[in-house]
This record gives sequence, structure tokens and C-alpha cells, in this order.
Amino acid sequence: MPPISHGGDLDDARRLFPDAPTPWIDLSTGISPFAYPVPAIAAESWTRLPEAGDLAALCRAAASAYGAEAGEIVAGSGTQPLMAAVLRLLPPSRAAILGPTYAEHERLCCQAGHRVQHVTMPDQLGEDACIAIVVNPNNPTGTLVARTDLLALGRQMARRDGLLIVDEAFMDSLGDAGQSLGGHVDNGAIVVLRSVGKFYGLAGLRLSFALAARPVAEKLAAAVGPWPVSGPAIAVGRQALADIDWQSEQRARLHEAGRRMDDLLAERGLEPKGVGPLFRTLRGQSVPALFESLGCAGIWTRRFAFDPPLLRLGLPSGEMGWRRLREALSGFSFKS
Amino acid sequence: MPPISHGGDLDDARRLFPDAPTPWIDLSTGISPFAYPVPAIAAESWTRLPEAGDLAALCRAAASAYGAEAGEIVAGSGTQPLMAAVLRLLPPSRAAILGPTYAEHERLCCQAGHRVQHVTMPDQLGEDACIAIVVNPNNPTGTLVARTDLLALGRQMARRDGLLIVDEAFMDSLGDAGQSLGGHVDNGAIVVLRSVGKFYGLAGLRLSFALAARPVAEKLAAAVGPWPVSGPAIAVGRQALADIDWQSEQRARLHEAGRRMDDLLAERGLEPKGVGPLFRTLRGQSVPALFESLGCAGIWTRRFAFDPPLLRLGLPSGEMGWRRLREALSGFSFKS
Repeated sequence: MPPISHGGDLDDARRLFPDAPTPWIDLSTGISPFAYPVPAIAAESWTRLPEAGDLAALCRAAASAYGAEAGEIVAGSGTQPLMAAVLRLLPPSRAAILGPTYAEHERLCCQAGHRVQHVTMPDQLGEDACIAIVVNPNNPTGTLVARTDLLALGRQMARRDGLLIVDEAFMDSLGDAGQSLGGHVDNGAIVVLRSVGKFYGLAGLRLSFALAARPVAEKLAAAVGPWPVSGPAIAVGRQALADIDWQSEQRARLHEAGRRMDDLLAERGLEPKGVGPLFRTLRGQSVPALFESLGCAGIWTRRFAFDPPLLRLGLPSGEMGWRRLREALSGFSFKS
Repeated sequence: MPPISHGGDLDDARRLFPDAPTPWIDLSTGISPFAYPVPAIAAESWTRLPEAGDLAALCRAAASAYGAEAGEIVAGSGTQPLMAAVLRLLPPSRAAILGPTYAEHERLCCQAGHRVQHVTMPDQLGEDACIAIVVNPNNPTGTLVARTDLLALGRQMARRDGLLIVDEAFMDSLGDAGQSLGGHVDNGAIVVLRSVGKFYGLAGLRLSFALAARPVAEKLAAAVGPWPVSGPAIAVGRQALADIDWQSEQRARLHEAGRRMDDLLAERGLEPKGVGPLFRTLRGQSVPALFESLGCAGIWTRRFAFDPPLLRLGLPSGEMGWRRLREALSGFSFKS
């Protein structure tokens, strides 16, 4: 497969729009613009091999945050190495991916030898695949599949010794209103993936978790080895995952920023087709022109090669971003 | 396979020797006790997804430090994920490991479906395996295989479409006197692994590199995905790998500490059977008693389940460590 393009690379922006005003306003990712304040890192976090006890403490904090048991959690340096390990739990099989969605999952399926089938409705996931993959809520559509439907699908996959993999990278923002399967991995056929990078705005940290029934979690832990995440990631992750007050404030901040984005888009007659916790997705024939227009104004957004009328906008981090986005949109007439 | 025990976990030390004086002197690893000074980390290294351009700059710095071309380098969060990716380049094969050595390589071979054969002489590596694995210089024996011998073995492996994997985690300290294959991966059958954690004393950073011919490096880069290392690891790694003055001072510091360790051991009539750049390895019937005696004195060393008469001692970081090691050894009568 050719390399997949992703949001978040301002070198791409600078290449495409060399004359754009700076600093760039990066709305190209689904990463929270409000970062968890990184605490001072003890020297030992850099110099020593991460110790088993510290990794276990990190996993306990994650278990508590995600509603799982400590023995059901495995840490990884990002969702990718964990997804790769999960996909190697089964021999080459048929994998159904609910899409359109995050493209790396397909690439990882292919690397693990699975044949990928793209489906657009949750019902199709259980038709004849041994591996069902759902990003919930989905990126870039924002679609949320109900927990009850996923649990039924999980039972179906269990009967055929398959796996339901639910990537909950964007679940944190939804709080109790979410439909997390974090507390429901005990049937052995469900694996949940969680990401610290997005909700906590710490994508450079490379810290994610897989939640799975104990025997599955043990296999995943063996696959990622004794030092799967960095010392600083353990230190920051332990604090952030236990910081319930900050998490609650962050949900309110993100909710407020989303509402403000909806208001701004509505002013210009724009209605997002996809509403995710950390982004809004527009769709229309004007999108390529809007991408250009925003790019010339130094605002980097995310377009999708598989569907050119689609454009994803992350949330601005401060008043300058909001002002420049408002100005850039004000000169634009959108056709859906 | 059962979990492998490693050095560097002081929880193990505290469990075994609850009454030992503190702070613990940790000589249980082959990690430099002198750490590269971690620079201030920019906020963006934590918050943003690591960008392709920054990863490329890191790889250029590594290429320059290791004598390879930029297109021959792939970064990974530790040697383990890179080794796992390298081992998946070939279908399940016969893998020969020159030992005794670092035990994780065998575990990763088994995970990748390879059958492992342990050999004790370099000549045996080419006998009938498709994958030959050498840690050079070796841990815990310190043995260094000559570059010419490895190049001949690499040609042999190329003829059978196999791989020679050389783990050079301990090579940096040797400088030009080393036998690195870093500049010799172009035959396509040689992969070299380098570790930032050990020589730079930054094991918590999780930063290693694989050096391989371009087509192989491209496959490895695809396997580890677009964000294989953390933002802080990129920032620190770029600086450390380019800091030639510090590297030269570090080699001198480590050489001096090694010499001091040899003197201290010689005072007690102890001659190390293995001399590595970052450790000395003792062998003898007194070793289990010495391990106990040092443990009771709050000095944590590395023993090996596969060979109980073996004991590896890392280098102390400062005068308190030297003093306590000298005191602990002075009361001990060693039998080889």
C-alpha cells in the first residue's frame, strides 16, 4: 500500500501554501487543542529502564479511567503497535471495517495478512468476517454505534472465535454519555483501544491502551514486550489518567469549543455532516475550494483522498485561531 | 515462554533484600550511569503528532552517527519493536543465535514463528540457519566478533535469501575501535540494530534504530508506521546523536570507569571473565554468595537463571557507588 496521508503535518501545509500567513492554525487533526499540563519529569524517567511496577501503576490508572480491571489493560506507544499486536492474535482472516474511517487500520490488517472488506453499516460487520473493526465514535464521520449493538456483535464474533476491535480514540470526550465497551471486554472476543494523545492533547507522548479479557491481555502484553512505553509517558500518563477534575473540565472545554464551532459554521450557512467530539466534518462540492481558501489564509484542514468533498476541521486552541477562521470563512460562499 | 527476568528493576531488589541500606546502587544493567543531559523539551514535542520532517531529521542525525545513509535508517521505540519487525521480514525459518546472550531475541524469534537454534561459535551461525543473530559486542560476555567475519557471514546469508541481524546496542563506547557494520548494510542481507538508551544513559526514552539497505528499510518503516517514536525522543535524540563532543567525552568517561572497575576487582583478586563497554561479568562458584552479599549491602547486580555462576556488574555512577562497592567486596572472599 502507498503511504497514507494524515493530518498534523505542517510541512505539507507549508509546501502547498508557501505564501500563507503564519503562524499556521492547525485544524487538520482530531487532537484536543487543550493539552494536559505536562508535569516536571523526574530524571529517572529518562535515564532508567521503565520498571514493571511503574508500568503496572500506569495500567491501574488506565483501568480506573476506562472502567476496566487492571489485568485487562495493556499499554502501548500509540494505538498502532497495539492494533498490530491485536491483529496478530488471529491467523489471516477476513476483516470487516466499518467505514469510511481511519485508514491505518486497513493498512495494519493487510500487514497482518488479513483480507479487508469495507462495510458502511454496522449490521454488515457480522456477516462473514472473523474480525470486525469499528472506530467509535467514528473519525471523520462522528457516527456513534450503540453499546447494545456492539455487545451483540461481540457475542457473534465470540461464537466464531473471532474478534470485535473497537477503537475508542475519541470516546473520552463523551463521558458517561459515551457508549464505551471498556467495562465489557470479559467475553474474550472484544478488544477496546483507547488513546491518551487525543483527549489529553498529548499526541507526541505516544501512549495508548488495549483493553481485553485477561488471557487476551496477557498475550498482548507478551507481544509488546517488557518496555512498551517510555518513562516520561508512564509519568505523565499516570498523573493525567488519575486527574478526574481536569478530565471533567476538559470535557466542558471541548463541548464549549464544539458549540462555538457549530455557531461559527451556522453563521456562514454551513451545517457539519459529521460531528465528532474533537472535530466537525463538512461535505459539499465547494470543499476543495474551501480547503484552498483556508490554506491561503494559513489554516490547515484535513481533506480525504478517498472522498474529495469531505473536509474535517479540528477545534482552534485560542482567540487568534477563532478570529482567523471566522475571517477566512467570511469571504467564502459554500455550496453543499 | 515464561517472562524473562531483566536487570534494572529495583522492585525485585527491594523484595529480595528488604533490609538493605538505601539508596540502592543499581549495577544490574548495561546502561551508562552517565546520562546525556536532557534539554528543555518544547511544548509541541508533547502536544503535536511527531511530523515526518522531524522524524527524517532524527534519522539523518542517526545515519551520521552510525555511518549509514539517511535512507538506510528506521527509528523505533526501543530495539524490541524493531527486532520484531525485522524478524517478520522472513517467513518462519530457522534462526541461529550466538549465545549466551540477551534473551529477548529468542522470545521475539519464537513470536515470529522461527525455530531457534543456540550456537556458541560464530562459525556455526552460517551452518544451516536463514536468520543469524549476533549481539556485538555481546552481552553479558563482552565478546566482539570481527567485522570481516560478519561480512563473510552476511554474504553467506544473502546467498540463501536470509538475514544477518547484528545487535550493536553496546557498540557506541568502542568508537572507531569497534567493529560496527553500520556502513555495510548495502548487501541487503544485513540489518544492524543500535540503541540510544545504553550509551547515552537514556533507557527511559525508548529510542533505537535499525540500519538496513534501502528496500529493507522501507519495509521496516512501513511496519513501524508513521509515528514510531515519541516527540520528546525525537527532540532529545536529534541533539544527542549530533553532539560529537559529548560522545567523545562519554567514551572517555566510560573507559575510565571500566578501568577503575578492573582495578577494584583486581584488588580483591577478581578477574572478570567478560569485559563489555558498560559492564564486567564475573564467573565462579562464589557468585551466588557474592550476589547475596552485594544485595545485603544495597548493591543490585545481574545474575542469570541459565548460568548461576555468572554475575554482571554495571558501572557505578559516582563516588558513593564506588565506595559502597569497595566496602561490600572487601568483606568477601571469592572462589572462581
